[in-house]
Amino acid sequence: MTLPATAQATAPQILARCRDLVRPALTQAVRRLHPWPAEMAAFSLGWSEVGGRPVPGPGAGSHGKGVRQALTVLCAEAAGGSAEDAVAGAVAVELIHTFSLLHDDIMDGDETRRQRPSVWKAYGTGPAVLTGDALFALAVETLADSGNVHSGAAVRHLAGTLNDLVRGQAEDLLFEARPWTGPEAVSPQEYRSMAGHKTGALLGCAAGLGAVLAGAPAATVDALARAGRHLGVAFQAVDDLLGIWGDPQVTGKPVHSDLRRLKKTYPVLAAVSADGPAARRLVALLTSGDPLDDTAARRAAELIEEAGGRSATLAEARHHLESARDSLGSVPLAPAAVGDILTLLPFLVDRRM
Amino acid sequence: MTLPATAQATAPQILARCRDLVRPALTQAVRRLHPWPAEMAAFSLGWSEVGGRPVPGPGAGSHGKGVRQALTVLCAEAAGGSAEDAVAGAVAVELIHTFSLLHDDIMDGDETRRQRPSVWKAYGTGPAVLTGDALFALAVETLADSGNVHSGAAVRHLAGTLNDLVRGQAEDLLFEARPWTGPEAVSPQEYRSMAGHKTGALLGCAAGLGAVLAGAPAATVDALARAGRHLGVAFQAVDDLLGIWGDPQVTGKPVHSDLRRLKKTYPVLAAVSADGPAARRLVALLTSGDPLDDTAARRAAELIEEAGGRSATLAEARHHLESARDSLGSVPLAPAAVGDILTLLPFLVDRRM
Repeated sequence: MTLPATAQATAPQILARCRDLVRPALTQAVRRLHPWPAEMAAFSLGWSEVGGRPVPGPGAGSHGKGVRQALTVLCAEAAGGSAEDAVAGAVAVELIHTFSLLHDDIMDGDETRRQRPSVWKAYGTGPAVLTGDALFALAVETLADSGNVHSGAAVRHLAGTLNDLVRGQAEDLLFEARPWTGPEAVSPQEYRSMAGHKTGALLGCAAGLGAVLAGAPAATVDALARAGRHLGVAFQAVDDLLGIWGDPQVTGKPVHSDLRRLKKTYPVLAAVSADGPAARRLVALLTSGDPLDDTAARRAAELIEEAGGRSATLAEARHHLESARDSLGSVPLAPAAVGDILTLLPFLVDRRM
Repeated sequence: MTLPATAQATAPQILARCRDLVRPALTQAVRRLHPWPAEMAAFSLGWSEVGGRPVPGPGAGSHGKGVRQALTVLCAEAAGGSAEDAVAGAVAVELIHTFSLLHDDIMDGDETRRQRPSVWKAYGTGPAVLTGDALFALAVETLADSGNVHSGAAVRHLAGTLNDLVRGQAEDLLFEARPWTGPEAVSPQEYRSMAGHKTGALLGCAAGLGAVLAGAPAATVDALARAGRHLGVAFQAVDDLLGIWGDPQVTGKPVHSDLRRLKKTYPVLAAVSADGPAARRLVALLTSGDPLDDTAARRAAELIEEAGGRSATLAEARHHLESARDSLGSVPLAPAAVGDILTLLPFLVDRRM
């Protein structure tokens, strides 16, 4: 059932409306793949189990909230277009998001994703590389062949994003080998730039694509894309908080999962760069040469909080959320759609906290 | 030095002219990447060693013959455009070619490429996945941002190719697990379809992109793309012959390399499907359960020849080369450029035989 777009809709209703609109085109796109990568893509999207058996029940297809596709649809409406204008863009963005999760899990060696094995773990590295490539190609084709008069501009918008994504992933991978302290240490500013490329770019693209496909003027596209980027960085900050203090029941990851893996996330980098006694004790723990066990991870989380890493990350998330709101207010937009976007913002960032 | 396009130029001169035209734009495109994937891309293109040290001497950058970029340039000229029209397309095609070698080497577990370690072997699997993604994104961006009035059509042309490439690679990977005989065996026809997707598509794209960027009518684009696809399949047939009977000094691969790995290539599949006494002895050898040693591989090569696999593959190559010539003759084209293409054809297919 498709609900009308009204300012009174709740966040779950808004997300469901956009998902219902985009799902048929997304399903149709994935069906155009060779059956083997199509099966792996469906697994990755949460539509099926390993082997291709469909996931039963009403939950099928609601893997993830569909934030990106919703943003594309709502930004097309905000820019004065129709939700239908945005469908090809929303499909492309979901395909690129899935591609990037798939390949990032290979690069990061992550064995689980959303409480299931990651694609490379379930199907092998080679097939997972292939499926990512297939999703990437399908995203470009979906947008290029959409028949929308603005599809050329939309492909250009997507292409720039793809390069940002790769840049962000390169930066993130290189962070791993760098020290926690000294002139080679990763600064919170560098982390912010990486998050802008890796997470901000795709949400910025999701928002901007909606506006491009609606035929919006450059200033509107820029304002919406900027809002999306800020939302993406806020989103990443919240993810970083959840990676340390999130409830495993909700996140699907072990408690303190990012700390155990000595992952360089914003809360840790902000704490280390604070350079007080708690920061120094934290550095000693992180550089002891061992992976952190339960006790050490719990102690590290306490020290990060004591050194101000948790509050700095919360401030970072709030700052970017505020900047997203400012961007939305900087150009004339359709009020009902902006109302929907504003309804989503806190829901997305305050999730699971 | 850029030579003028004349029907009198030799194949190496034609390839050098196109390479000289495309190289600055290709170099500039790769420089736009993050430095890390840029280094791996330069290694993969034969421009530098592991670690980034440039390959010295005049040979630098002539890694591979540059067949694909030459085809794009010559097809733009054949369709009545200028060589300059084609440059962005030639760059995109070389980037996609490099991307596909890089990811295919991961999927196939190939540890060497052109007598050097493959990228995943030299830099690790994750970084190689990343570099392939970077090249893929860069190809789309280069074409989308080229400023050519036909860039939208060019991106659509490329996007269709990308999906064919993935399909061909999926088919090829699935062949590995299938038996040599019985109803599940890979037929020579299935192999032909795979080669059409995996090798034909990119050469077809190279040719078609030149015509698209020159603003050629659909019939001209189709004829040139068809010629490129036939050339690609002929090329693959020759590669398959070289994988069995090629001189290791020239191919850079061990003698009988494809046979040792029990690779399902056209000569073997054609021999097996011939179903005579030699074919049956060949099947016994291939299904003995062991990787082939020197003696067994030499014996297998003899049996393939005896069962007609070698001559069938040569006939296949000649047939597709002839079809490529027919396609070139099916529409009005600029004679000088067609002369150059016809000069290249035998040079490309008869290489190293």
